[in-house]
Amino acid sequence: MVQHAPALNRLVGELKKLPGIGERTALRLAFHLLKSPHGLELLAEALIQVRERVHSCSVCFGLTEQDPCPLCAGGRDVSIICVVETSQDLLALERSNAFSGSYHVLQGAISPLHGINPADLRIAELLERVGKGGVEEVVIATNFSVEGETTALYLSRQLKPLGVKVTRLAHGIPLGSDIEYIDPATVQWALKGRSEL
Amino acid sequence: MVQHAPALNRLVGELKKLPGIGERTALRLAFHLLKSPHGLELLAEALIQVRERVHSCSVCFGLTEQDPCPLCAGGRDVSIICVVETSQDLLALERSNAFSGSYHVLQGAISPLHGINPADLRIAELLERVGKGGVEEVVIATNFSVEGETTALYLSRQLKPLGVKVTRLAHGIPLGSDIEYIDPATVQWALKGRSEL
Repeated sequence: MVQHAPALNRLVGELKKLPGIGERTALRLAFHLLKSPHGLELLAEALIQVRERVHSCSVCFGLTEQDPCPLCAGGRDVSIICVVETSQDLLALERSNAFSGSYHVLQGAISPLHGINPADLRIAELLERVGKGGVEEVVIATNFSVEGETTALYLSRQLKPLGVKVTRLAHGIPLGSDIEYIDPATVQWALKGRSEL
Repeated sequence: MVQHAPALNRLVGELKKLPGIGERTALRLAFHLLKSPHGLELLAEALIQVRERVHSCSVCFGLTEQDPCPLCAGGRDVSIICVVETSQDLLALERSNAFSGSYHVLQGAISPLHGINPADLRIAELLERVGKGGVEEVVIATNFSVEGETTALYLSRQLKPLGVKVTRLAHGIPLGSDIEYIDPATVQWALKGRSEL
């Protein structure tokens, strides 16, 4: 592609590996970076820092730079644990400001098709946390996909014998959306879960 | 944003500086990179290599890792010089496989509004190259924007006294496009430049 600059070619190749970035965008980004050598350096440094500093929390398995992470170390309610698939999901829940309990990041969801079994996830660690006592409720916030639902079902079967309350995030119409365009299954759930005004 | 991981936050901040990348995409890219520490390292290395190795050719001022660049060092026709604004434009012309002459990269276009004057571009160097003799034609391939047209006009006034033929890329309908949707000015140019079949 850029025959006369192998280093540039290599950068374009690396950028192309990122999700949603094709050949043209990668080229545009590379040329943009070339225009500011300082920006190039800052990005390289940021990447190296992330690799060196960011790891999984030994309690909740979310991404952190401390161990335990500030959420596990801080004054969060440890009697309620919200189980998510990824750290991104944890962030989305934190953005809602509606949860003051603690988290557990499974680092994926059960997916036999992709060879992901319960043993590949942080399920044993969750059961251990709950088994230690002091946990009253586990909110399962896996995605509403086949994998997420499978994982939720599996978790509830494993958790209930431990005498803990197991709940699931509510299905329903997303805020600000037009009911006209919502899929029938979601409308069904929204009707089933209707509450009195 | 990502309160509990300053390094991750910094990476998101650096990614957000790239054109067309907002907060959400930056987060998605950062999390994608986190999933493969090796990919992170490769990207950081590629960035550092580009900063260290890529610079401007001392003849044509295009981006290169050698000096002179392979295009200037190789067997290209030096009697015809194609003048472009950026190295990206040079690449676009190379992709067409329709030009076997040499290039001159101005590294921008005249734009008094943005404080870019002829002295800020590689115009003196172009005039010097042409002044040395052996150049028969200069093809001006600056963009068809106000800045590009201004630059083309300025260049032609500077080059003509040197006894060299000055040409400009043709305007017309792009291949594969629907005439219905082409702007009237382009259609005008296409009519004016029509050729016999």
